Amino acid sequence: MTQKPLILVTNDDSITAPGIRALIEVMKEIGEVIVVAPDSPQSAMGHAITINNTLHLEKVTIDKELKNEYSCSGTPVDCVKIAVHEILKRKPDLCVSGINHGSNSSINVIYSGTMSAAVEAGIEGIPAIGFSLLDYSWSADFEPVKPYVKKIVLEVLEKGLPEGVVLNVNLPKKPIKGIKVCRQAKAVWEERFDKRTNPQGKEYYWLTGEFVNLDKGEDTDEWALKHDYISVVPVQFDFTAHHAIQQLNSWEL
Amino acid sequence: MTQKPLILVTNDDSITAPGIRALIEVMKEIGEVIVVAPDSPQSAMGHAITINNTLHLEKVTIDKELKNEYSCSGTPVDCVKIAVHEILKRKPDLCVSGINHGSNSSINVIYSGTMSAAVEAGIEGIPAIGFSLLDYSWSADFEPVKPYVKKIVLEVLEKGLPEGVVLNVNLPKKPIKGIKVCRQAKAVWEERFDKRTNPQGKEYYWLTGEFVNLDKGEDTDEWALKHDYISVVPVQFDFTAHHAIQQLNSWEL
Repeated sequence: MTQKPLILVTNDDSITAPGIRALIEVMKEIGEVIVVAPDSPQSAMGHAITINNTLHLEKVTIDKELKNEYSCSGTPVDCVKIAVHEILKRKPDLCVSGINHGSNSSINVIYSGTMSAAVEAGIEGIPAIGFSLLDYSWSADFEPVKPYVKKIVLEVLEKGLPEGVVLNVNLPKKPIKGIKVCRQAKAVWEERFDKRTNPQGKEYYWLTGEFVNLDKGEDTDEWALKHDYISVVPVQFDFTAHHAIQQLNSWEL
Repeated sequence: MTQKPLILVTNDDSITAPGIRALIEVMKEIGEVIVVAPDSPQSAMGHAITINNTLHLEKVTIDKELKNEYSCSGTPVDCVKIAVHEILKRKPDLCVSGINHGSNSSINVIYSGTMSAAVEAGIEGIPAIGFSLLDYSWSADFEPVKPYVKKIVLEVLEKGLPEGVVLNVNLPKKPIKGIKVCRQAKAVWEERFDKRTNPQGKEYYWLTGEFVNLDKGEDTDEWALKHDYISVVPVQFDFTAHHAIQQLNSWEL
């Protein structure tokens, strides 16, 4: 690539989150960076989009070295859509989302705004990667993972991604032993609802729960992360369970 | 099954939508019905969940023949979680979501609150089906599709579903020629953002766009619906692109 690659950066923790600022730092070493990210936290928004409300877009300057930073009132997926269809003159060469404060391994991929932004870019035909650090803290240390983020991004820019595939990259807290390509572990959240009463006597609930890995496989993201490896899961957005079609065809429908 | 099956009914158009009332009518003929559905429209919420806010749950009586109807302030996925983990004493035998006012075929499965509720039930190990009618109107006629909804539900209750699979059922407006098991068509939304100015002079946007089917296959949901068939797509929530793992393993990571 003779021209610098155009890289769209987004996330779900909002445009001022330390995780996205760390990701921007790394991307500035690689290409021309445009940032379009939510103006407020949008964790667990999944693939939600804003269709029954208006969207606001604000040009902001958080990093003086960047010419194009925008905060958006919408979800992570809205950010990708408005970047591609309203702001950018040409399709970006890459979209990176994150670095999320907290894991998006296993079934969390489905709830994650970070990953949904990457998936949306994939649907738009843009190579895309979601990055998440296994540390929920706002003061998480992103320095140790920066070289790995750079390595993975350079590899994707060089090799490209298979059609219809984006990457879900989860980064353990250091020390990191290496990188493993994995499948999504079969895990669930065992939810609880914490029932409380407000000052007016009305009951309300907080969703809470425990993540339970049911999968003993050594080829899963959970296994890799537990053993201090970075997990790279190729994620697709053709949700068809192709293996089930034959069985369903035997039904009397 | 000697005991009546316990059926959880939800949707994304809200508990008072004609589509869910039609679905409840059919389910009452088959089993014991519990309704937990959003108190306001939640279309295009995807797999969003409420983690940074409180949830409210209200016992309501819309259908006097039902003992258990609840409206919930959360997303469709929240409704399934609170039904299973807070309201119900035992796991339901089936979860049905819909009938959505409007299509959830092809890539729309990813944005759909209707389908996300069904997928969440699937994650919880409950056989689940999302139903959508290709008519956005609030006064859509659900009568012609009721016999098909009943047929599909009875078949699922009798045969069960493969592990990790839920059904995405889209129903054309009549006349209906039959039912086809399909794969998700490869299609995209070509978005536009309608830029406007509010009375205070501030710019804002509305997301709009056109659905474009790029897939010429005759085994897709789009093909079936276009030819007046009901489409049944088996949907999985293991998003791993298993076919891409080998290729990624050849990378220098």
